[in-house]
Amino acid sequence: MNQNIQTLKGFRDFLPAQKRRRDFVMAKIVEVFERFGFEPLETPTLEYASLLMGKYGNEADKLFYKFQDRGDREVALRYDQTVPTARVLAQYQNELPRFFRRYQIQNVFRADKPQKGRFREFTQCDIDIFNSKSDIADAEILACTYSAYKNIGFENVILKINDRQILLSVLEKYSNEQVNVFSIIQSIDKLDKLSSDEVITELESKGLERSQANQILEDLKNVSANSNLVSIINNAVSLGVPREALQFTSSLARGLDYYTGMIFEISIPDYVGGSVGGGGRYDNLIKQLGGVDISAVGVAFGFDRTVEAVKELGIFDNTKNLGTQILVTVFSEEFKTCALEIASKLRAQNLRVEVCPMIGDIGKQIKYADQKQIPFVIICGEEEVKNNTVILKNMGSGEQQTGNFEEISKLIKF
Amino acid sequence: MNQNIQTLKGFRDFLPAQKRRRDFVMAKIVEVFERFGFEPLETPTLEYASLLMGKYGNEADKLFYKFQDRGDREVALRYDQTVPTARVLAQYQNELPRFFRRYQIQNVFRADKPQKGRFREFTQCDIDIFNSKSDIADAEILACTYSAYKNIGFENVILKINDRQILLSVLEKYSNEQVNVFSIIQSIDKLDKLSSDEVITELESKGLERSQANQILEDLKNVSANSNLVSIINNAVSLGVPREALQFTSSLARGLDYYTGMIFEISIPDYVGGSVGGGGRYDNLIKQLGGVDISAVGVAFGFDRTVEAVKELGIFDNTKNLGTQILVTVFSEEFKTCALEIASKLRAQNLRVEVCPMIGDIGKQIKYADQKQIPFVIICGEEEVKNNTVILKNMGSGEQQTGNFEEISKLIKF
Repeated sequence: MNQNIQTLKGFRDFLPAQKRRRDFVMAKIVEVFERFGFEPLETPTLEYASLLMGKYGNEADKLFYKFQDRGDREVALRYDQTVPTARVLAQYQNELPRFFRRYQIQNVFRADKPQKGRFREFTQCDIDIFNSKSDIADAEILACTYSAYKNIGFENVILKINDRQILLSVLEKYSNEQVNVFSIIQSIDKLDKLSSDEVITELESKGLERSQANQILEDLKNVSANSNLVSIINNAVSLGVPREALQFTSSLARGLDYYTGMIFEISIPDYVGGSVGGGGRYDNLIKQLGGVDISAVGVAFGFDRTVEAVKELGIFDNTKNLGTQILVTVFSEEFKTCALEIASKLRAQNLRVEVCPMIGDIGKQIKYADQKQIPFVIICGEEEVKNNTVILKNMGSGEQQTGNFEEISKLIKF
Repeated sequence: MNQNIQTLKGFRDFLPAQKRRRDFVMAKIVEVFERFGFEPLETPTLEYASLLMGKYGNEADKLFYKFQDRGDREVALRYDQTVPTARVLAQYQNELPRFFRRYQIQNVFRADKPQKGRFREFTQCDIDIFNSKSDIADAEILACTYSAYKNIGFENVILKINDRQILLSVLEKYSNEQVNVFSIIQSIDKLDKLSSDEVITELESKGLERSQANQILEDLKNVSANSNLVSIINNAVSLGVPREALQFTSSLARGLDYYTGMIFEISIPDYVGGSVGGGGRYDNLIKQLGGVDISAVGVAFGFDRTVEAVKELGIFDNTKNLGTQILVTVFSEEFKTCALEIASKLRAQNLRVEVCPMIGDIGKQIKYADQKQIPFVIICGEEEVKNNTVILKNMGSGEQQTGNFEEISKLIKF
C-alpha cells in the first residue's frame, strides 16, 4: 500500500462506529467518576524527557518516543499518566485540594512491539486519591471502579483483591540470594495465565527448590485476609459493592513492584480477554517519581480491553443507539425551503437530522438513507407543500405516512 | 524553577476548573454536531512525516514536530486534522458514506513561537461535509456553527460571509506582475485588524498604485452578494439561522489560499478577542493533499478562543455547576458504616459525593469542604445513628438540619 495512505504500525484510526463505542464507554465511566467526586486533569502530550524518563527502569526507557525539538530540548511523548501527575502534585501544591481526587483519560505512547491488543498509542484511564492513608480511600477506589463497570452495562463484575503485605509475609521466607521476593511475586503474578506446574517450574529455574515452590502455592492457598483488607472490603460493601463481587485472591500479585498495600484487578467473567484493569495503594511512588511525599491509591482501567469487552458482549449496539435518525430529502429546488424548515424543526426536538445534499431523484436519496441505516426519511413534494404536510417513511417497515409536522413527529420513535 | 517540575514552553496543564470549562464547551459543541448528523472521527497523534509534510508550504513545514522513531521511520506529530482526514477519505473510500460528515476534535502540534493565545499543543475542532457541491451543504455548515455557539450560551453570534469568487472578480483586474491576486487577498484579510490607510499602504508597498489600492476598497464596498451566496444565506435562514446573524462582508478574505467558494468567520460581538473560528468551501484541497478528488465544505472552531470567550463573558460558572456537591464526613471508626452507606445512597440519586478520608475531628473535615467550596456536608454521629438520622449542613447559609435520609435529601438543592 502507498505509504501516503497508511497509518504507522501500532497506531489506529477510529472510524465513526468504533469512535462512538469508545465515546460511549468513556461517557459512562466519566459519569461515575464525577459521582465519586473525582476531578478531571489534563497534562501535555510532550514533556521534558528528563522529567518522564528513568522512573520505571531501563526496559521502560527503551519504549519512550524521545527526540530533540527545534530548540534542542530533549522531549518525550507521554508514557503514562502517573509521572505527569506527580509533577502536577509538586508544581501546584498550594492550588490543589488536600485530598486531591483526579481522573485523567489521555493517550500514552510506547514504542513496544505491536501485537494483538497492544498498540503504540493507546488510551489510559486513571483515578487516584492522593494524600490519604485511610482505608476509606481504598474502598472509594474499589466502589467507584465497580460502579463504573456496572454503569457501562456489564452484568457481572468481580474485583479480585489482595494486599501486598500478605504476599510479602508469605513469600519473604522463601527469598534467597538468587531470587528476591519481587522476582517470586512476578512469577506468582502469572498464575492466571499459566498452570501451577508452569509457575512452579519457573520458580525452580529462578533458583528455588521444587518443594519450596510447591509450598509457596500451598501457603498462598491457606493464608487469609489481614485486618487492612477486611476493613477495606467492609467499607466497600457499605459503599454499595455486593460482598460476592469482592474476592480475596491471595495469589493476585500485580507485576509492578511499587504497590505497598491493597492491590486489585477487575475481572469481567463473561469476557475471555482476562483482566480489564487493576490498581492498588502505592504510598512511596509519587515521592520516587520526583514529586512530593504523598500517599496514593488508584486504579488504571484498561480502556481498550474494556471497549473490546463491550463489543464482544454486545453491550453497545452502534446502529440502534446513535447516528443520524432522520434523513430529510430535497424533492426539488422549488421545495427546498420546506425540507430545510422541517429539518430545523426536528433538530429543535433534539433529533439527529441530516439534510440530503442532493436535489431531486428521491430514489437515490432513499438509497443513501438505506446504506447509512438511517431509520426515517422525510419527503416533501408539491402535494405536501400545498397541504402543509410531509411524508414520513419508516425505513425498517417500509411504511409511508402523510401528515402535518405534529402528526409526523409523533410517529418518530426509536 | 527545577526543570523536573516544569512544562515545556507553549504546553499547558489543565487543572480541574479549567478542564471542566473546556469539557463543558466541548460537550455543548458535540451535542449540536450530532444533531446535525456529523459523525466522530479520530486519527493517530503520530503519522509518517511524508504523509503530513509538504502540504502547506515550507513555512508550515518548519513548524512540524518531526523525528526518527526507533525503526528509523520519519514520523511527525499531527499538525492539523485536514491532512489525516484526506488520508482517511482515500484509505476507507468503500466504508464511508457517500456524503461523509465528520467531526474531529483532537490536539495538534506546532513548533511556533509561543505568545499570548498561541500554544504549541492546542485543540482543533472541525466539521466538514465531503463530496457534495450543493449549497445545502454550505448552509448546513453555517447553521450547525451558529447553533453550536448558541448552544454554548453566547447571546450574540454573527457569521460574516463572503465568496472567494466575489473577491477574485473584484481583485483580479488589479493584479500585476509584482502582486498576484492572493497577495492582495492577504492584505485585504487584515482589514479587521488594521485601518484602511494601513492596508492601502501595504498594498502600495506590494506594488500597487495608491489610487488602485483606494479603488479596491471602494469596489469592495459596492459589490453585492452573488447568486451562490444569496442561495446559501436563504438556505441557512430556512435552517433556522436569523437573517441578521448572517452578514455579507465583501472585505472578508480568510488568509488561506485553498478556498474556492463561500468563506466565513464566526464573530462574538461581546468578546473583544476577534474571530473565534472560520471556514468555507475548498473543493480542490483534498485532492491536492493526496486524497481522492472530492469536494468539501467545513469550519474550524478556534477552541481555545471559544473557551476564552466563555470565560470572559461568564457563561460557565465553575463553582456553581460542577464538582463535589456533598462531603460525607466520618465521625468515628465506630460510625463509619453509616457515613459510607449515606454516601452510597446519595450517589444512587446521581449526586456528586465525596467521603472524607479522615476519621474524627469534624471541624477539620468541614474546613476541607469549605476550602473545596462543597455546598453541603453530612454528619452522622452517635445520636444520629441511634435515631437513624443524619445532620445536613448547608455550607452557604451555615444552617444545620437533622432528619432521616428522605427528609434530608429533599433539602439538597443547587
